[in-house]
Amino acid sequence: MFERYLSKDTEMLRSSEIRDLLKLTEGKKVISLAGGLPDPSTFPAEEIEKITSDILKNYPERALQYSTTSGIVDFRKELVNLSARRGITGINENNIFVTVGSQEALFMIFNLLVDPGDTVIVEMPTYLAALNILRARKPNFIGVKVTEKGPDIDELERKVKENISNGKKPKLMYVIPTAQNPAGTTMSLEDRKRLLEIAEKYDFLVVEDDAYGFLVFEGESPPPLKALDKSGRVIYTGTFSKILAPGLRLGWIVASEEFTHELELYKQNVDLHTPTFTQMIAMEAIRRGVIDRQIPKIKETYRKKRDVMLSAIEKYFPKTAKWSRPVGGMFVFTWLPEKIDTVKMLNEAMKRGVAYVPGSSFYYDYSGRNTMRLNFSYPSPEELEQGIKILGQTISSYL
Amino acid sequence: MFERYLSKDTEMLRSSEIRDLLKLTEGKKVISLAGGLPDPSTFPAEEIEKITSDILKNYPERALQYSTTSGIVDFRKELVNLSARRGITGINENNIFVTVGSQEALFMIFNLLVDPGDTVIVEMPTYLAALNILRARKPNFIGVKVTEKGPDIDELERKVKENISNGKKPKLMYVIPTAQNPAGTTMSLEDRKRLLEIAEKYDFLVVEDDAYGFLVFEGESPPPLKALDKSGRVIYTGTFSKILAPGLRLGWIVASEEFTHELELYKQNVDLHTPTFTQMIAMEAIRRGVIDRQIPKIKETYRKKRDVMLSAIEKYFPKTAKWSRPVGGMFVFTWLPEKIDTVKMLNEAMKRGVAYVPGSSFYYDYSGRNTMRLNFSYPSPEELEQGIKILGQTISSYL
Repeated sequence: MFERYLSKDTEMLRSSEIRDLLKLTEGKKVISLAGGLPDPSTFPAEEIEKITSDILKNYPERALQYSTTSGIVDFRKELVNLSARRGITGINENNIFVTVGSQEALFMIFNLLVDPGDTVIVEMPTYLAALNILRARKPNFIGVKVTEKGPDIDELERKVKENISNGKKPKLMYVIPTAQNPAGTTMSLEDRKRLLEIAEKYDFLVVEDDAYGFLVFEGESPPPLKALDKSGRVIYTGTFSKILAPGLRLGWIVASEEFTHELELYKQNVDLHTPTFTQMIAMEAIRRGVIDRQIPKIKETYRKKRDVMLSAIEKYFPKTAKWSRPVGGMFVFTWLPEKIDTVKMLNEAMKRGVAYVPGSSFYYDYSGRNTMRLNFSYPSPEELEQGIKILGQTISSYL
Repeated sequence: MFERYLSKDTEMLRSSEIRDLLKLTEGKKVISLAGGLPDPSTFPAEEIEKITSDILKNYPERALQYSTTSGIVDFRKELVNLSARRGITGINENNIFVTVGSQEALFMIFNLLVDPGDTVIVEMPTYLAALNILRARKPNFIGVKVTEKGPDIDELERKVKENISNGKKPKLMYVIPTAQNPAGTTMSLEDRKRLLEIAEKYDFLVVEDDAYGFLVFEGESPPPLKALDKSGRVIYTGTFSKILAPGLRLGWIVASEEFTHELELYKQNVDLHTPTFTQMIAMEAIRRGVIDRQIPKIKETYRKKRDVMLSAIEKYFPKTAKWSRPVGGMFVFTWLPEKIDTVKMLNEAMKRGVAYVPGSSFYYDYSGRNTMRLNFSYPSPEELEQGIKILGQTISSYL
């Protein structure tokens, strides 16, 4: 009976392909390269247990009570410090806004900024769950191709100009400059500067998703766009899901006070505030150096797993395939010969015992039918080797 | 610079008057009857500490990892049991949906169901934060006056008929049948049945907010509308904020599977899922009988505080004032003589040392200028006595 009552906006809602896939693989003997889960062996459970015990003994009435909408002040001060380690300076706690994971950050940012018909720029491919939020806002999309160096900045400027001359001035660009999900690419410092110059010149906002900024395990991570932002044009999102634990659902936004005030008004409607207790846990994890100890440990774990996956791909994938060689994050992206449709191939792959995410899910227009995303953070090294072997055989059988 | 980028929907966002007030009273020597905080002395901190310790020792990888969008299955099964204690039967875990407080429940329900121009029915007065979500959807409001017995059911039917004859068929009614916030009223069983008959006859949905259903401290609490719902027309929301701890931000929805599926698609966009760790804490609190032990303790605390407030009102308020005598919940609502404007009186009251929420905040059309909401759950008995004394003197000075 509900269908006829639903808001017209609801038409746009589609189940996340990744989550549907995860459901299919649940309880079956399928090696899943489809997920996006951190390696749970990296969770600092003992240290978190000590922290929760101390909090509940010393500050029970504070930890279990309502708190302010933008996040606990002391936690926001620690987030100023944490942001500084990504090179983001000159901010204070009023520039920080705490959210239920960075998913809620993106949900609020896009809902506050994007009206139907507004022009927004996204990478092709880009993060699926961000695309789903944007799709629900019914915008005019500009897609910018991601090469092995990140988004093609020449193409960006050309498409922005084209759209402006057609009366479609872009309002914002959503971009993941470091260890991109799904492409696994990292933008150079020069490209970051050029992107910001273009945003300045054509006057659009930049929403920077820095989910993997702390997880660059090879070479130096260039500074985030927010660290290079002179005009307050960049809205930055970070997350504890990759550096502490996703089950706490904690993310944060760095933005101008003008914008964090808008976020505050909106979040009063969405959920009043992020859980006090989980905020205090993450606050203490920063203060006690847990995060500092976690980051190198996680990097080392993921670097090894990436190496296992890349070696296996080298060994088992046909020579006509291309793939990213990520310096950070949790994913390898693969471009197969054009004749292969990874959506159609998925059933066969799952029959043979391996799952992946078809890359078209990460394209706003569902193109990229010959691509796929492979996760290396969650499976064991043995599963990575075996999964890639089966996948290589599956691909070969389609050639 | 952000103003010109904001979505057109953003115009509707207004800061919550309650929260702005709380900010004003922060750190000042003002007795606040304005809040809506539970009494922190009722928080079972020691038991929660034992639970968190056990969870992190025994299930660390589960508690700290991502989990399913609709809520952990085992927790939803416990919520089926908890709902049964409110008389809601014949449901299973697929009828349950876990949210970040019942605020997120209301946010998602109203965003899924209400389009601009849709007709929605609300009580006058009703819960401020629900009104703010609805206002952002730009509906056509029907307001139904709350008497000492709850919403006036005759007026409800008359206004529904009127609106239908004007082409404005209602889509849903938002109602708080038990220990209403702010009015403190509780509907009789007969009125509950009549409300449902009208919903059936005129074919609108009912969103039932049962935030205080477990906190009826005088007499029996009549069953919630959801327990009387034969056609799956009622969407029920519950919260752990009043029976365990608001800092955990946990609420739940009981609805048809058809609707919980829509909620699942939407919540994937909003925040992926409610924190795994806090869900496991509440799950264990149900299993270990913590909730069962909490409820009588909280009831006893609030019953005593209500008695202190009502005695003080009796003593200090002018005879021309009227007030509710709540059998549950956390608030007393007061109707003052028409000549008093409680918005204008607030500054004077705060100067004298007491704060309250002007009642007009709880009316969709900002009427009810002579009313105010008084909270008895948070202040100490001494503060309640003293606060009401000052408030009585303030009122008298305006007469």
